[in-house]
Amino acid sequence: MPGARRISILGSTGSIGRNALDIIARKPADFKVTALASRSDWQTMASQARQYKPALVAVYQENAASRLRDQLRGSGIEVVEGVDGILEAASLDEADVVISAIVGAAGVMPTYAAVQSGKIVALANKEALVAAGRLITEEAQRTGARIIPVDSEHSALFQALMGQDRSAARKVILTASGGPFLGRNRVDLAGVTPAMALNHPRWKMGPKVTIDSATMMNKGLEIIEARWIFDIPADRIEVLIHPQSIVHGMVEYQDGSVMAQMGVTDMRIPIAFALSYPERLDMGLEPLDLASVGRLDFHAPDLEMFPCLGLAYRALKLGNGIPAVMNAANEVAVESFLSGKLAFNGIADVVRAVMDEPPEFDDKTLSGILRGDQLARAAARRITEMMESE
Amino acid sequence: MPGARRISILGSTGSIGRNALDIIARKPADFKVTALASRSDWQTMASQARQYKPALVAVYQENAASRLRDQLRGSGIEVVEGVDGILEAASLDEADVVISAIVGAAGVMPTYAAVQSGKIVALANKEALVAAGRLITEEAQRTGARIIPVDSEHSALFQALMGQDRSAARKVILTASGGPFLGRNRVDLAGVTPAMALNHPRWKMGPKVTIDSATMMNKGLEIIEARWIFDIPADRIEVLIHPQSIVHGMVEYQDGSVMAQMGVTDMRIPIAFALSYPERLDMGLEPLDLASVGRLDFHAPDLEMFPCLGLAYRALKLGNGIPAVMNAANEVAVESFLSGKLAFNGIADVVRAVMDEPPEFDDKTLSGILRGDQLARAAARRITEMMESE
Repeated sequence: MPGARRISILGSTGSIGRNALDIIARKPADFKVTALASRSDWQTMASQARQYKPALVAVYQENAASRLRDQLRGSGIEVVEGVDGILEAASLDEADVVISAIVGAAGVMPTYAAVQSGKIVALANKEALVAAGRLITEEAQRTGARIIPVDSEHSALFQALMGQDRSAARKVILTASGGPFLGRNRVDLAGVTPAMALNHPRWKMGPKVTIDSATMMNKGLEIIEARWIFDIPADRIEVLIHPQSIVHGMVEYQDGSVMAQMGVTDMRIPIAFALSYPERLDMGLEPLDLASVGRLDFHAPDLEMFPCLGLAYRALKLGNGIPAVMNAANEVAVESFLSGKLAFNGIADVVRAVMDEPPEFDDKTLSGILRGDQLARAAARRITEMMESE
Repeated sequence: MPGARRISILGSTGSIGRNALDIIARKPADFKVTALASRSDWQTMASQARQYKPALVAVYQENAASRLRDQLRGSGIEVVEGVDGILEAASLDEADVVISAIVGAAGVMPTYAAVQSGKIVALANKEALVAAGRLITEEAQRTGARIIPVDSEHSALFQALMGQDRSAARKVILTASGGPFLGRNRVDLAGVTPAMALNHPRWKMGPKVTIDSATMMNKGLEIIEARWIFDIPADRIEVLIHPQSIVHGMVEYQDGSVMAQMGVTDMRIPIAFALSYPERLDMGLEPLDLASVGRLDFHAPDLEMFPCLGLAYRALKLGNGIPAVMNAANEVAVESFLSGKLAFNGIADVVRAVMDEPPEFDDKTLSGILRGDQLARAAARRITEMMESE
C-alpha cells in the first residue's frame, strides 16, 4: 500500500484487537499503531505497547491506568485514562483508521468520536449502530468518515457490493452458523450452561459475542447494523443458516445474480480487509479449500427456536430507540446467564419483557440514547432478578 | 439505462441468440436490435426479423439468404449473405454491443471483426479466444473493444473481479457441473450414445456445447478462454466440480477472501449482464432460493475420467497454435460422435492424436490460425475415420 496506514485500536486486548495486532505484526511496512485503548487489562496493554510503540495508550479504569503508567515510565508512551482517555484515543489526529472493537454499549461513544473525527472506522462494535445507527451514519456523512465493517458477515456484504450496481441490490443475506445448539429444540435449551454455550463450533470470539451467537441475538444485532451500514430496509435483510460458516454473506441483485464472499473462519480476513481497503493483503493465511470442505448447507432459520432473531426484526421495525433498549436488555441478560444465574431461554424472555414496556427517552441525541440504555439496563436488571429467583 | 443500447446478434437462431432476444423483448426500453446473423435457419430469422426489426440480417448460406430475402421483401430490412455478410453484421457502425454467439470456429472471424470495430463484445463463442486469444485480446486493447463474457462461468469470474483489487487476485476457479456422467467411470462411458450425452442435468444448451460439457472439453476450452479474458496464467486457473451449478465461478484473493457469483442455471442472467454491464436489469426471473437448494457440493475433477481437461491444460501450456489444433480436432470428433460414428471415449483419443502430431502453421495471424484450424480438421477427419471403422 502507498505508505503505512496509522491505526488506533479501541479494545486492543480483546479478540478483535489481538487479531488486528497480529495482522499489523505480519505487515510492518503497511501499518503503524498510533493508539491503543482498553478497559482494564494493563498487563496485556503493557506488552502490546512495548511491541507496537503507539504514541498513546488509553485505559478506562484508573487503577489499571496508573499501573500501566508505572510500567511504561520512560518509554515516551503517554498513558491516559477514563472515558476521556478512550475518546482521546478514538479521535487522535495522527490516526488514519480507528478500529472500534470495545464490546458492548461502552463502545458507542468512542465509535461516535471516531466518526466525528472523520476517520476510516473499522467497526467491530455492534452496539454503536444498533443503539445509535441513525446518529452515527448521519455524522459519518457530515464528516466524510467511512465505516468499514469488521464483522465477517458485514464485511462479506461490503465486499459483495463493492464495484457493483448498488441500485440493483435487492436483498442482503447474512449467514449464521446456527451456533452450538443448531438442531436442538427449545426444550433442550432450557438446561444449557454457560460452558455449553461458550463452545462455539466455528468462531473463536469473546464470551458476550459467543453467547449472542448461541441465542442468535448476534444475528439480530447484525440485521440492525446492516440496515445502517448498507442503508437497506429490514424487509430486504435476510438470515440464512449455514453451519459451515464458509459463505459469510451474500447480496442478491435484481438480475438474479448473487454475489457472495467466502473464506475460512478466520477473523483476520475481515479485519485486514477493513484496514487495507480497497486493497487486499497477503498475510500468509491458509486459503479456503472448497474441495476439502466438500459441502455447504443452507436453510431458513427457525424463529421459534431462536426468538431473539424475531425480537431484533421487531425492534428494527419499531425504531424509536427500541433497538437500543433491546441491546441493553440483552447485555444484562447475557451477563446474568454467564454468571450462572439466568437460564439460557431466559435471555430472550428478559429482552422481550423490557421491549414490551420500554423506558421513555430521547433517541435523537447520543446522550438521550445512552440514558435510554441505562434505563433499559435498570429495567432488565429488575426483570432478571425476578427471573433468577424463580 | 441511459438510452437504449443497440445490439447486433451473431448466431441469433441458436440457444444464446434466442435467450438474448428474450431479454430484449422483456426490456424494450433498454435495447434495440441492429443486426441479426445466422447460418441457415431462414424461417426462424424471418420471424425474428419481423419481431425485432433490425436494419440488417445476415445469413451465411446463399440459398437460405435468398429465401429470407423473399420473405422480408418490402420490410425495409436488408438481407446480406456469406462470410462477408456475417462480417458486415459484426461491424455495423450503429451497434453498441455485438453478441458473438456463432458456435465453433465459424465464430472466430466475426468475433475478430467486432473487436476490430471497437464494440462491446458480448462473447459466447468459445473458439475465438481458444484459437486466437492473443490476437483478439491485443486487437481489443488497440481498438478499445471491451470483451464481456456471456458464458456463465466467465461471467461469474468477471463479476467476482469487478471493483476488486485485481492485483490481489491469486486464483480463478471455474465450476463444472460434471455433466451427465459424473460419478461414472471411464469404462462405463464406452457405451455412451449421443442421446445420453445430450441429456445435460443442469443447462439447456446447443448440441455441440452439451457434448463438450459431457467430455469436460467445455471446461477445457473455458480454461483457455479465462487465460485470455482475465490475463491470468494456466496455473492460476482451477476447475472445481460442483454438481448443482449454483456457484458459477469464484476468484480467490491473496487475503483469503473468495468472491463468488451464484445464480439459478438460466443463461439469460449472464447474457443480460453482458448487455447491460455495469448495470443489472430486473428481467422478472425467479431468484435463487438457497434455502430450497439446501446443499452445494464441491470436489476436485477426476482427470482420468475426463482426459479432455488435461489436454486443454497441456494445449494452453504448449501454446503456439496448439489450442486451435485441439479445438478443431474436438469439433470434428464431436460431430462424428453426434452422427453416431465415433465412440464417446474416442473424442479425447482423436484430440490427443491430432495434438501429438500437430500441423504446422503460422499462429501469429488470423489467416494462419484459420489455416491451422483447417489442417487440424483434416488430420482429425483422417484419424476419426480410422477410429470409426474400428
